[in-house]
Amino acid sequence: MRLAVVPGDGIGPEVVAEGLKVLGAVAPDIESTPYDLGAARWHRTGELLPDSVLDELRQHDAILLGAVGDPGVPSGILERGLLLKLRFELDHHVNLRPAKLFDGVRSPLAAPGEIDMLCVREGTEGPYVGNGGVLRRDTPHEIATEVSLNTAFGVERVVRYAFERAVARPRKHLTLIHKTNVLTFAGSLWSRTVEEVSAEFPEVTVAYQHVDAAAMFFITDPARYDVIVTDNLFGDIVTDVAAAVTGGIGLAASGNLDVSGTNPSMFEPVHGSAPDIAGQGIADPTATVLSVGLLLEHLGRPELAKRVNAAVAFDLSTRDPKATIRTAEVGDRLAALSGG
Amino acid sequence: MRLAVVPGDGIGPEVVAEGLKVLGAVAPDIESTPYDLGAARWHRTGELLPDSVLDELRQHDAILLGAVGDPGVPSGILERGLLLKLRFELDHHVNLRPAKLFDGVRSPLAAPGEIDMLCVREGTEGPYVGNGGVLRRDTPHEIATEVSLNTAFGVERVVRYAFERAVARPRKHLTLIHKTNVLTFAGSLWSRTVEEVSAEFPEVTVAYQHVDAAAMFFITDPARYDVIVTDNLFGDIVTDVAAAVTGGIGLAASGNLDVSGTNPSMFEPVHGSAPDIAGQGIADPTATVLSVGLLLEHLGRPELAKRVNAAVAFDLSTRDPKATIRTAEVGDRLAALSGG
Ligand SMILES: CC(C)[C@H](C(=O)O)[C@@H](O)C(=O)O
Ligand SMILES: CC(C)[C@H](C(=O)O)[C@@H](O)C(=O)O
Repeated sequence: MRLAVVPGDGIGPEVVAEGLKVLGAVAPDIESTPYDLGAARWHRTGELLPDSVLDELRQHDAILLGAVGDPGVPSGILERGLLLKLRFELDHHVNLRPAKLFDGVRSPLAAPGEIDMLCVREGTEGPYVGNGGVLRRDTPHEIATEVSLNTAFGVERVVRYAFERAVARPRKHLTLIHKTNVLTFAGSLWSRTVEEVSAEFPEVTVAYQHVDAAAMFFITDPARYDVIVTDNLFGDIVTDVAAAVTGGIGLAASGNLDVSGTNPSMFEPVHGSAPDIAGQGIADPTATVLSVGLLLEHLGRPELAKRVNAAVAFDLSTRDPKATIRTAEVGDRLAALSGG
Repeated sequence: MRLAVVPGDGIGPEVVAEGLKVLGAVAPDIESTPYDLGAARWHRTGELLPDSVLDELRQHDAILLGAVGDPGVPSGILERGLLLKLRFELDHHVNLRPAKLFDGVRSPLAAPGEIDMLCVREGTEGPYVGNGGVLRRDTPHEIATEVSLNTAFGVERVVRYAFERAVARPRKHLTLIHKTNVLTFAGSLWSRTVEEVSAEFPEVTVAYQHVDAAAMFFITDPARYDVIVTDNLFGDIVTDVAAAVTGGIGLAASGNLDVSGTNPSMFEPVHGSAPDIAGQGIADPTATVLSVGLLLEHLGRPELAKRVNAAVAFDLSTRDPKATIRTAEVGDRLAALSGG
């Protein structure tokens, strides 16, 4: 097993170090190779994702990414040129984002209830395709467009994946989130696809919610959700709402999966490079460690994933909520618990 | 002053009756005419918004709408054919949505802090324009598109309005919410417009947040917001998040404004027709009454608007949180308090 590692910028390298510590404790056979990508490289060389690097990444079984970006890089450069480029080039059509409220973690909600949802966000279509343009820029007649592209092929595969996850969970419940009453063309494709695929999964109960209503229910009644399937942009927003009610992005893990296995899948914490706290050793590596859990599951080692997740659950339930986090100490504890 | 009233379906007529009660108590000179539009009319006649009715609506100074819809109408019909049609035909380019946490109202947040934001959502552009299509429907090669249209004209006028509102408030703070790092064409237009217009409002401090981060901060730190300006779709989602943290859509008011005054503006509670509780007299009319407050402000009667808002604030702060709401009793109390 070969893992490509992109530590990135800011707190990226700090949290990735702890993720690798845990990985080393449970799966010492996984060989990892670091790749220098992100803001630092861009400042130094102007490069974002050279073709040669992309080719090398493709030779690995998976990728672990920390976080990229710093305030000196104009908005959109690293996103479109590196992060989204990786997702699109490696056909990461499933963006997997669990949101679970662990024991001992304080939710900003007064009565959160039991939150344990699995968001399946589409990753290669929708308004993220970069299909848009601008006419008469910088004049009073400027027009800017953004086109959301949705294909039967793309929607069907992510919907099918969501059903497969739902049927394997105790509650077997799937919620489609979209805005079918306004985005009627894309909405119709999504609705019909869910209806069609649902015929193959009669045990799974299906619900639909408009994205605005769902964003509200995530706050007022998050316990109702089990698996969620949604488009790229809605998924971006609602998974951050889900993260917020389960303790914040310090705990939010994600996997960018090519379910077909043709390309390596990529695992990353949802948080950014947090330049404000970088270099101080106080970033919480838990989201990265949970992403390592998703990675292990994806590589066909569910028992190891379970051990990592259990270590995180134990650590969170026994943390002193007032103590400052020390990145390396959290990593040491999690590695000891997982490997033990 | 002439007000067109569209009670609509479900709880619409129930809450509108109370809104009119309050309006009658403070501004008995406003003459109101009911219009039969919504699901009931569509079932009966197949009509959504006949041109003749639209022409008549145009002859009024404002419109008050309850809620439209029932489970028998396919998704999208009333939205595109009536609600959005009104917004587009009447050029309701500002969708105004205050979100204030009133004393006595329980937020689902454990520590909400002081929440008092004014969301200015664009109402006539973005992904709401209905510009999309479908190719090879019902085949494995189906493609569905949705185009977000953004114009300098459309963005500038709503941004300017938001600055005008911000400069008139104590904190004088404006936050642009978008997704400029992914939707780079539209995002650039929005960012540049905010930057340009800000030069005319040096007293206003300006912040920017990506929509995903903002949806999170609405939950973890809503007190940081004052005025918000955002696009049509992002505004739809974040205003529901804002409503959720300030007590729910039972309290969320909105105004659809043609700021130029060419067409009548329309005021409506954000909630829907709630068929599950219709006919029982238990819907909370507060969102409609607060919408009447926005209407009075818009019609140049700020002192009356203040009285209505103060009545709502008093009523909410003295309500027994365990008692069932009685629609007519709330209306009676608010009318007495406002008119007194
Ligand atoms: C950084 C950005 C491109 C990205 C996204 O919008 O998908 C991020 O917000 C995420 O959710 O992973
Ligand atoms: C009913 C629907 C068309 C509408 C919207 O999406 O704008 C509603 O959600 C709202 O926020 O007023």
